[in-house]
Amino acid sequence: MINITFPDGAIRQYTKGTTSLDIAKSISEGLARKILLAKVGDEVWDVARPIHEDFSIKFLTWNETEGKNTFWHSSAHLMAEAVESVFPGVKFWVGPPIENGFYYDMDLGGRKMSEEDLETLEKKMKELVKANCAFERKEISKKNATLYFEEKGDEYKLDLLNGLQDGGITFYTQGNFTDLCRGPHIPSTGFIKAIKLLSIAGAYWKGDEKNKQLTRVYGVSFPSQKELDEHLNLLEEAKKRDHRKLGKELGIFTMDDEVGPGLPLWMPNGTIIIDELEKLAKHTEQAAGYKRVVTPHIAKESLYITSGHLPYYQDSMYPPMELEGQKYYLKAMNCPHHHKIFAAEQKSYKDLPFRLAEYGTCYRYEQSGELFGLMRVRCLHMNDAHIYCTKEQFYDEFKAVNEMYLKYFKIFGIEKYVMRLSLHDPSKLGKKYVDEPELWKETETLVRDVLIKTNTPFVEVQDEAAFYGPKIDVQIWSTIGKEFTLATNQVDFAQGRRFKLEFTNQENKSETPLIIHRAPLGTHERFIGFLLEHYAGKFPTWLAPVQVKILPISDKFLDYAKNILAILEKADIRVSIDDRSEKIGKKIRDTEIAKVPYMLVIGEKEVSEKNISIRRQGIGDMGVKSVEEFVSEIIKEIAERN
Amino acid sequence: MINITFPDGAIRQYTKGTTSLDIAKSISEGLARKILLAKVGDEVWDVARPIHEDFSIKFLTWNETEGKNTFWHSSAHLMAEAVESVFPGVKFWVGPPIENGFYYDMDLGGRKMSEEDLETLEKKMKELVKANCAFERKEISKKNATLYFEEKGDEYKLDLLNGLQDGGITFYTQGNFTDLCRGPHIPSTGFIKAIKLLSIAGAYWKGDEKNKQLTRVYGVSFPSQKELDEHLNLLEEAKKRDHRKLGKELGIFTMDDEVGPGLPLWMPNGTIIIDELEKLAKHTEQAAGYKRVVTPHIAKESLYITSGHLPYYQDSMYPPMELEGQKYYLKAMNCPHHHKIFAAEQKSYKDLPFRLAEYGTCYRYEQSGELFGLMRVRCLHMNDAHIYCTKEQFYDEFKAVNEMYLKYFKIFGIEKYVMRLSLHDPSKLGKKYVDEPELWKETETLVRDVLIKTNTPFVEVQDEAAFYGPKIDVQIWSTIGKEFTLATNQVDFAQGRRFKLEFTNQENKSETPLIIHRAPLGTHERFIGFLLEHYAGKFPTWLAPVQVKILPISDKFLDYAKNILAILEKADIRVSIDDRSEKIGKKIRDTEIAKVPYMLVIGEKEVSEKNISIRRQGIGDMGVKSVEEFVSEIIKEIAERN
Repeated sequence: MINITFPDGAIRQYTKGTTSLDIAKSISEGLARKILLAKVGDEVWDVARPIHEDFSIKFLTWNETEGKNTFWHSSAHLMAEAVESVFPGVKFWVGPPIENGFYYDMDLGGRKMSEEDLETLEKKMKELVKANCAFERKEISKKNATLYFEEKGDEYKLDLLNGLQDGGITFYTQGNFTDLCRGPHIPSTGFIKAIKLLSIAGAYWKGDEKNKQLTRVYGVSFPSQKELDEHLNLLEEAKKRDHRKLGKELGIFTMDDEVGPGLPLWMPNGTIIIDELEKLAKHTEQAAGYKRVVTPHIAKESLYITSGHLPYYQDSMYPPMELEGQKYYLKAMNCPHHHKIFAAEQKSYKDLPFRLAEYGTCYRYEQSGELFGLMRVRCLHMNDAHIYCTKEQFYDEFKAVNEMYLKYFKIFGIEKYVMRLSLHDPSKLGKKYVDEPELWKETETLVRDVLIKTNTPFVEVQDEAAFYGPKIDVQIWSTIGKEFTLATNQVDFAQGRRFKLEFTNQENKSETPLIIHRAPLGTHERFIGFLLEHYAGKFPTWLAPVQVKILPISDKFLDYAKNILAILEKADIRVSIDDRSEKIGKKIRDTEIAKVPYMLVIGEKEVSEKNISIRRQGIGDMGVKSVEEFVSEIIKEIAERN
Repeated sequence: MINITFPDGAIRQYTKGTTSLDIAKSISEGLARKILLAKVGDEVWDVARPIHEDFSIKFLTWNETEGKNTFWHSSAHLMAEAVESVFPGVKFWVGPPIENGFYYDMDLGGRKMSEEDLETLEKKMKELVKANCAFERKEISKKNATLYFEEKGDEYKLDLLNGLQDGGITFYTQGNFTDLCRGPHIPSTGFIKAIKLLSIAGAYWKGDEKNKQLTRVYGVSFPSQKELDEHLNLLEEAKKRDHRKLGKELGIFTMDDEVGPGLPLWMPNGTIIIDELEKLAKHTEQAAGYKRVVTPHIAKESLYITSGHLPYYQDSMYPPMELEGQKYYLKAMNCPHHHKIFAAEQKSYKDLPFRLAEYGTCYRYEQSGELFGLMRVRCLHMNDAHIYCTKEQFYDEFKAVNEMYLKYFKIFGIEKYVMRLSLHDPSKLGKKYVDEPELWKETETLVRDVLIKTNTPFVEVQDEAAFYGPKIDVQIWSTIGKEFTLATNQVDFAQGRRFKLEFTNQENKSETPLIIHRAPLGTHERFIGFLLEHYAGKFPTWLAPVQVKILPISDKFLDYAKNILAILEKADIRVSIDDRSEKIGKKIRDTEIAKVPYMLVIGEKEVSEKNISIRRQGIGDMGVKSVEEFVSEIIKEIAERN
């Protein structure tokens, strides 16, 4: 008999050679139907794999990340089986799971795959699902494995085998298809209830453009048709909301090859959104006692040696400029410049907390291949601030920062968010982490307390803190459920010392302040990218580049329209007139497409009755009002950022 | 007889060998007493130098720049004579006139000069002035000149001689002092009625720190004691107003060696002024139909090759950063980025004028020795904009820009200003200037017309235009009469073509727009530096970093003070409380020094009568008012930017 330990600590005995599936069945048939894999000790195993020793066990289902990944990896094998039946002689390279689904790279031996082929393959896969073949694991010697693929004449798998050591090599077989594979896999093809093959692309073997181009087929699969349908809807919606597409259509930003990759130019409409966000941040920060500063975008090498960015962060920095025998770097972070401002004037405990805010523009090097619209850029306008405080002030300051995050989430209608609290590993003190065991314990407890007391959803992650203190990364989800990493909030007990920052405490002694690094709105780049997708370009009135469009039904009403324009402009409302000689229907449609929140239709009736007909974007007719009434309502809406 | 031509074109005959002084005397004794020099043909001569040929003549007095410079140069010789009598054996290097006065570099042979020595020297100089010795010019061969200084043992003058060609060498002698000097000089020492020796400094020979350190004595002199007194007062006042001193005292900006020279960090108080200036610019530009944009601080080399900055402007740019085989440069101007935004979307004549504004931060390389406080920096936050317009729209656009300048001058109380209109030279078309004779004529006329019709004071300068069009540089004077170069306003018919910028005109054909480059508020750096000196740090209320300080007479009144604070903060007034346990007199003095416009004194009486006692910075008691009254008055003052 062997001892199996369950996650709750319970230990039960089983016959040697039992499987995870047997164990699950011994608990309940329902569980047995759901489990895809099991974590046995530190490894993830197929449920049918016999267990010969004492082990801890944890069942994994579709709900776990490992469950999903394996489900999609098995789906890739299933697709390969279908491909082999339709394109005999096909050779396969690799077929991994990806963020949402899977792909397989293959050499079709000169044949082309078409969209229709994808339908044929899907149909074939559904047949194979019905057959419900098990994924069978088999250990094999390197020699026999090599013989197998030599017979098959598959140079790709032989290349893979070449890199493997004898001893741990396994084959997986389902139905008529056998693949070289480390595993694990789900129990059988019957689990894959819903399948969609999405697209065909070219992919150079090993990503090297000097190599042969293989065919890559992308697909996605789910345990139920309902989940697949939801996912496909989401894909469709996400495509419409793609911030690169909307950014171009709405005149938000542009990229230019002569300026450089990852360096967006903000167009007039994008700049209005930037200005509104900065106004919000300035107002919020001013009320919270922050002082604003402006610092240069470059500094000498020595500043970054003092801060430790050189050499630790060098790979993410632009290369230096050499001037008068000095190296100058573009700043990748604002903190060193802010520390210099802290140090420029003597400080006493009465000056603390000292909060410096700047929408600082930083430059970071990201590899060309990593760049993506506004989400991964090289130029970052950061909603940055640094709070210098005493240990006693830390809890309140950190709490206030956390509350600012929550306040912003409310304004932008961000309902789903999670904070990832990254902690240190005590065994790595003095190596990966600053050797201050007491400060670590203290600040980690304080940070955790803030999160608990404010009912903020959070997860704890071991051994992922910054070297200078614990940190919180903020994950948010857009209205359609797309995940974004927004911002970071960090505790720092190292930089203060590196920069010899000091204040005189109440005992008239020198002390080093704690520093909080925070950026609740992240960067303009990522945040506006997020907002474009979150709102599908339909910005709330306070953020909309054009807030009101006046639509005269004909030129006869242009004078009246201009009067209305003047009144709205005086009230600082962003407004324009559509004075084209177009039918009113076309004017309304075009304004809808431009996603302007309000349309004021002006015709005979409005002029004679001295009022305006109001249409709301995406809603339609809102009735007739006096200009004064409309102005006071929209001013209120804008001021409240509704 | 020789013919002498006067500036008015009149020609009169004089005996060969006559002098400018004789000629002046022949006109009037009064003139003869005033003239310091004469422009004879193309050269500036001593008035006692005989004239042997036909020449044009122009008399020069203290009122001309050449007059002043020579006056100060002669004063340096006079000082040298005094030094030689007090420090026998002294050797002299060079003694030029400078912006305001003169200096002489000397080797005192190990002796030290003290402040008391300056007084002794001044006294001695005054004696020599009384003697009224003439400055006598003598041509000398290089051989004899060398012999003279070899006998004197003066290696410095020998070094100078070494670099001179035989033939044009002259000595000047007044009283007991003879100097190697190209001249010219004023007639005699008696002209120098008022002298002040200002300071003693060290200066390396030839400016090379490996050489011996010489003693440099600075002085200034005038034709009357009144002028000297006025100048010394101005110096005293300018010293108090030095923007570097005030900038530190008022927490406006700081420099840091690890950040780099010429790269100011804006402290919280400076950032408030930046924000207010940007608010003013945004508001003014929005009303004038500008659209705002935000562009990166870097771009690829190819952008600057297209624009022509490379290689023409390369010396003023930071060196490149090499990334992925590409060179990236910090932008020295915003125009190329703005052109890219113009080009990002198709334009028709209906979109013009298209005005793009950005407070863009540019980086320019200035040599370390040229850097000076905020006046000469390497980081420039520029009040930039580019207007793209048709030829027909140009006049109105340029006029509107000019009016914006005048509007700003009024807001900032700039009463004295001159616009320098720089024109092209038709003989250099196609070389120094774009070969568009018609466009040059047209735009120069239009620009001149604007200046004339708006009664703007201006001077015309030939052959100093930009290569792409005529330009206006704006000179302004601060309240105490110090001159600053503020801003530039340029016409451009070249960049549009280089960037292939186009719009569809009314005939549906492609046309290239004209471009106006303008920056009425110049850069934050230079403008805030100017404002510090202009206002002597006493900013008007709308710009003041702290607008109101509440001064409770004792802690008893702190609660009432906090109520007042809350009311003012709600009205967005920048306010704080002086809650130190200091006497009210000290609180008032400290607030005066901090140059806060308003002080609200709170004591027994104010609390019981529910009002506040108001003091105005630099004026004193303004009586008692209710808080509401004060708030409405100060809000009006701020809104009107009085």
